[in-house]
Amino acid sequence: MDDPDLVERLGEGAHGYFAGGAGDEITLRDNEASWSRLALLPRMLVDVGERDPSVSVLGRDLPHPVVVAPMAYQKHAHADGERAMALAAAATDSTFVLSSQTTTSLPDVAATAPDGHRWFQLYVFRDRAVSLDLVAQAREHGYEALVITVDFPVAGWRERDKQTGFRIEHPVAVNPGGEPMTTEELFAQHDPTLTWDGIAEFADAAQMPVLLKGILRPDDAARAVDMGAAGVIVSNHGGRQLDTVLSGADALPPIVEAVDGRIDVLVDGGIRRGWDVAKALALGADAVLVGRPLLWGLAREGRPGVEAALRQLLAEFDGSLALLGCPNARDLDPSYVTRAPW
Amino acid sequence: MDDPDLVERLGEGAHGYFAGGAGDEITLRDNEASWSRLALLPRMLVDVGERDPSVSVLGRDLPHPVVVAPMAYQKHAHADGERAMALAAAATDSTFVLSSQTTTSLPDVAATAPDGHRWFQLYVFRDRAVSLDLVAQAREHGYEALVITVDFPVAGWRERDKQTGFRIEHPVAVNPGGEPMTTEELFAQHDPTLTWDGIAEFADAAQMPVLLKGILRPDDAARAVDMGAAGVIVSNHGGRQLDTVLSGADALPPIVEAVDGRIDVLVDGGIRRGWDVAKALALGADAVLVGRPLLWGLAREGRPGVEAALRQLLAEFDGSLALLGCPNARDLDPSYVTRAPW
Amino acid sequence: MDDPDLVERLGEGAHGYFAGGAGDEITLRDNEASWSRLALLPRMLVDVGERDPSVSVLGRDLPHPVVVAPMAYQKHAHADGERAMALAAAATDSTFVLSSQTTTSLPDVAATAPDGHRWFQLYVFRDRAVSLDLVAQAREHGYEALVITVDFPVAGWRERDKQTGFRIEHPVAVNPGGEPMTTEELFAQHDPTLTWDGIAEFADAAQMPVLLKGILRPDDAARAVDMGAAGVIVSNHGGRQLDTVLSGADALPPIVEAVDGRIDVLVDGGIRRGWDVAKALALGADAVLVGRPLLWGLAREGRPGVEAALRQLLAEFDGSLALLGCPNARDLDPSYVTRAPW
Amino acid sequence: MDDPDLVERLGEGAHGYFAGGAGDEITLRDNEASWSRLALLPRMLVDVGERDPSVSVLGRDLPHPVVVAPMAYQKHAHADGERAMALAAAATDSTFVLSSQTTTSLPDVAATAPDGHRWFQLYVFRDRAVSLDLVAQAREHGYEALVITVDFPVAGWRERDKQTGFRIEHPVAVNPGGEPMTTEELFAQHDPTLTWDGIAEFADAAQMPVLLKGILRPDDAARAVDMGAAGVIVSNHGGRQLDTVLSGADALPPIVEAVDGRIDVLVDGGIRRGWDVAKALALGADAVLVGRPLLWGLAREGRPGVEAALRQLLAEFDGSLALLGCPNARDLDPSYVTRAPW
Repeated sequence: MDDPDLVERLGEGAHGYFAGGAGDEITLRDNEASWSRLALLPRMLVDVGERDPSVSVLGRDLPHPVVVAPMAYQKHAHADGERAMALAAAATDSTFVLSSQTTTSLPDVAATAPDGHRWFQLYVFRDRAVSLDLVAQAREHGYEALVITVDFPVAGWRERDKQTGFRIEHPVAVNPGGEPMTTEELFAQHDPTLTWDGIAEFADAAQMPVLLKGILRPDDAARAVDMGAAGVIVSNHGGRQLDTVLSGADALPPIVEAVDGRIDVLVDGGIRRGWDVAKALALGADAVLVGRPLLWGLAREGRPGVEAALRQLLAEFDGSLALLGCPNARDLDPSYVTRAPW
Repeated sequence: MDDPDLVERLGEGAHGYFAGGAGDEITLRDNEASWSRLALLPRMLVDVGERDPSVSVLGRDLPHPVVVAPMAYQKHAHADGERAMALAAAATDSTFVLSSQTTTSLPDVAATAPDGHRWFQLYVFRDRAVSLDLVAQAREHGYEALVITVDFPVAGWRERDKQTGFRIEHPVAVNPGGEPMTTEELFAQHDPTLTWDGIAEFADAAQMPVLLKGILRPDDAARAVDMGAAGVIVSNHGGRQLDTVLSGADALPPIVEAVDGRIDVLVDGGIRRGWDVAKALALGADAVLVGRPLLWGLAREGRPGVEAALRQLLAEFDGSLALLGCPNARDLDPSYVTRAPW
Repeated sequence: MDDPDLVERLGEGAHGYFAGGAGDEITLRDNEASWSRLALLPRMLVDVGERDPSVSVLGRDLPHPVVVAPMAYQKHAHADGERAMALAAAATDSTFVLSSQTTTSLPDVAATAPDGHRWFQLYVFRDRAVSLDLVAQAREHGYEALVITVDFPVAGWRERDKQTGFRIEHPVAVNPGGEPMTTEELFAQHDPTLTWDGIAEFADAAQMPVLLKGILRPDDAARAVDMGAAGVIVSNHGGRQLDTVLSGADALPPIVEAVDGRIDVLVDGGIRRGWDVAKALALGADAVLVGRPLLWGLAREGRPGVEAALRQLLAEFDGSLALLGCPNARDLDPSYVTRAPW
Repeated sequence: MDDPDLVERLGEGAHGYFAGGAGDEITLRDNEASWSRLALLPRMLVDVGERDPSVSVLGRDLPHPVVVAPMAYQKHAHADGERAMALAAAATDSTFVLSSQTTTSLPDVAATAPDGHRWFQLYVFRDRAVSLDLVAQAREHGYEALVITVDFPVAGWRERDKQTGFRIEHPVAVNPGGEPMTTEELFAQHDPTLTWDGIAEFADAAQMPVLLKGILRPDDAARAVDMGAAGVIVSNHGGRQLDTVLSGADALPPIVEAVDGRIDVLVDGGIRRGWDVAKALALGADAVLVGRPLLWGLAREGRPGVEAALRQLLAEFDGSLALLGCPNARDLDPSYVTRAPW
């Protein structure tokens, strides 16, 4: 399953960190499989001469629904790290989400792709001053939304990292000195006592729309509506936190139902093909986040690799709109998908 | 999965073109698997000394329900191309459907097997004059029905063709000069703005029964009834257009229900065995189209290869009627099939 | 899957004949798998110090529910052929069913194991005199029941036999001269016009209880009750006739319900373990037939091989009664089985 | 599947005995798979800064829900046998269940880990004096509960033991002289006539809480309530008795419903990960038993190996409570689990 070329490029440690998941990686594998368990039901003889892939997220039009997921430590994938990723995102009109565990500073990322749309992903650390400082930087440097990750009170059980002993060798916010640390040491700085009240503090500080990332239960999504979140991201953290949790694809429909259009619903996990994007939207998602495929593009070729991966995904999505007979992405609805009989 | 002998005979390019499907080829594989997910429930002690495999399609008796599916560029499979296919069809009393992307002209095919039953498959091209000319030729040369393909507004995402860079090296209607072109270039001439109204124009010009090929939704099938089509062909284009769409076998029952006997319903995709044919009829299809198995017969041996493949299929179908205790193909009904428990 | 030792012992031809099934052998494989799709629910703390495996079939007690299935051409498995099989059956108190395609005469089998219980399996041939003569011999030589096979109007599509060109080289009733003939030639002598009325003729001639073998539909089973059969054998002919038909295990429950205790119901196909026997009885079968495992015992070691296979099966069945907390085989009921969640 | 290192350490015989299951080992494999067929639905933004893994069993608090399952003949896994296992259990605050087939005496185990919590597992032997003597020893040496195994009236059909001819070479209660005996010979001393009345005799003699181990049916669980048992252990004996019985995971929910909180319900079989423990509790179990993973720890490294296995399991369980947003093990409920869609 692992690509030997990538293992060689990144080394066992970094490769295992990026590729791996929690426990026996059942959820990691299911993330991809779950989209393939949905079958499509295309409509014919619709004029699809022009397709409009745009969607509306956070009250604003996005040219298309693909968002670059927050991913930590990108300099371990490629020397150009987050800058290459941000540039590729900007070049494809994709919103870029910068991780709290970025190995490039928030101002540097902003300066690299000043016109690109960017959101900031926040971890609430035990030392809340670190998190508040990140929020302040995000606000100052034109990040347009705050994605607060809520599924990481403690680190997941990641056997690959335990085996390789992988250490981060770049400075990050919680380790500005940059002394090599294991991911477990870095993750130990997350605050496991964070609650809905704690979130509010950061939402207030941010003064920008807040998306809660890592929601898997409809009751939690309803609570996100109540606390004033602008959206939720249905996600299992790429299968990296608790093994055997539901995939985003499977958790999505009841959450869409619970939210009932009051706030935005995004989804991630295992989206590899443009028709997966179409399925997510048909099930009610407003946009999707894509991670690993872009990371591998970065690892292989830097910015052009990311851009190629994004362009292929967007081309496949465009073709899917045509072949589904649904030229406007906003018109995708549940009639286009059904549980696959295979 | 690929037959190395066929790869060698045809070359990677042509082989990949014929064998391949869209995306990850999930639908391609499911087309075959979907028939195997249906179990048979045979009736015993019926006199099956004589079997009658004939069916009624387009108001006419066909000696049996197997129709040769339209397949493009047959000279890339064998030098004898569409002529060999048409001869084998005629020799086995099978209706032959000639593709718009034929590498042999409509009159030549007609002259080769003048007594064979033949239909013409139409792509509506951006240059509608090309399509109208094909329709005129079809009418002139004794093609008895027009099969308008409706699931091809744009080309599917076919990775094999992208990898091999396969080019068509024979003249076809949209490239009469015959300069080598990729399939993507050829397919770019399909009209993505075609709608139900556009179809009507060709139906009028054809003055012959029209079948719409590529229907997967019951509402589209109902609309085909309303627009005066003589039939629909439930099909996902051999898994070549949009990956993860439903198979014909799975899409068929609700379409049969929606059509409710008002027009003919045919089905294709993954039919490999005579008992698959029986299942299709038991589920309500009036006839079936078979493609790749005949193409491989053509590639291996030319006309005798096609004929052998057809004869085996018909022998298996005959045996199925006997072993199902249903000597008349027209008497097959849903009581003979059930969802397989395996 | 094939045992190379058996292939070598029997040769490709005979091995393929015995091991093979129809078509793609989906049903052949499912016969075994279908029993494994049933889970057991054992009861605890029942006194199982003594177990009684006996059952009642055709109004008579059988010491246990395992019947030796009719199998053709046993001399192609081992020089001792049907005699070895009959002796092993007698030694284990198993009822032995002799095939119409026996390579040992009915009197010889009777003389070999005079005290063993034996039934005769009848094919109704085009030349009915041959069949009637077999029935007369059966009556004369102490065969206690007539098993009329109803699922063989024509031969199944058996690709292994087509490939090997296997020929029977021993005299059988329809080829008393014994000139080598393919199985297809031999099977062409079955009468495909046989109906319920035709069966009655043989039932009358037999003057012994009649079991109809090869029933898969509840309506056919109900009809067997009406025509006065003593029982039905739910069977798909070892997966050798029509591929993708239901297994005996899956066809059994609705037939038990339709028959409602009025006549006996037996089942065969894929029973390999003593707990499979227990499942069959729990689902309502009165007894089971076992074929291939005994044939392989015969092929390997002659009579001792058959006997060992039967003894293991009976030991497993005895242990199953103990571990299910159901010491009397007649008390097995549907509460002991459920659809397996795996 | 078998670990070659373990095969080499233990020899084919002992390894096969410990690793193997009944019949085709379908249930053995399903025990692990059944937990993976359950998906988790974590709750977010709960303060999980402190987790409390404690549970209440037999009216007493246990620091955590992991109990060391009774396993026979532990000196065949490691020279330190049951003493190493008991020490590792005590070191991790795990309740230790000593088997009737212990290769270390009850007083020796008690003396080795005097402060550890220990239960005694009882087989009721044909020679009831042997069993009554074990009960007396258990009472005298501080064993706090009696686990009566009810699923072993006779030995399961274990092919590995038949093939290896494995013999026990240590003295056990039913063979105090210690002459080498096969497991079948040893197991033949179990009393197959044991009933609910017979259990009562031992429950009276024990004067300690009684748990019935091996219950798979709700009606049996209800009867255990009626006879005054303190609890039931839902178990299929590690897949070693009757193949194709339900797993503990699948048998658990209806038993929890039948028992309705009146007595404790424990479960074992296939629990390999801390999140499996969480699933068991979410489905209503009060605690779980874990066997083979500890046995392999013992085989590899003696006590430290067992301790490491227990510590990993407990760490994973602790992390699961955090990531499920359910910091108190007693609060796990069915809302955290659902049938996995994969």
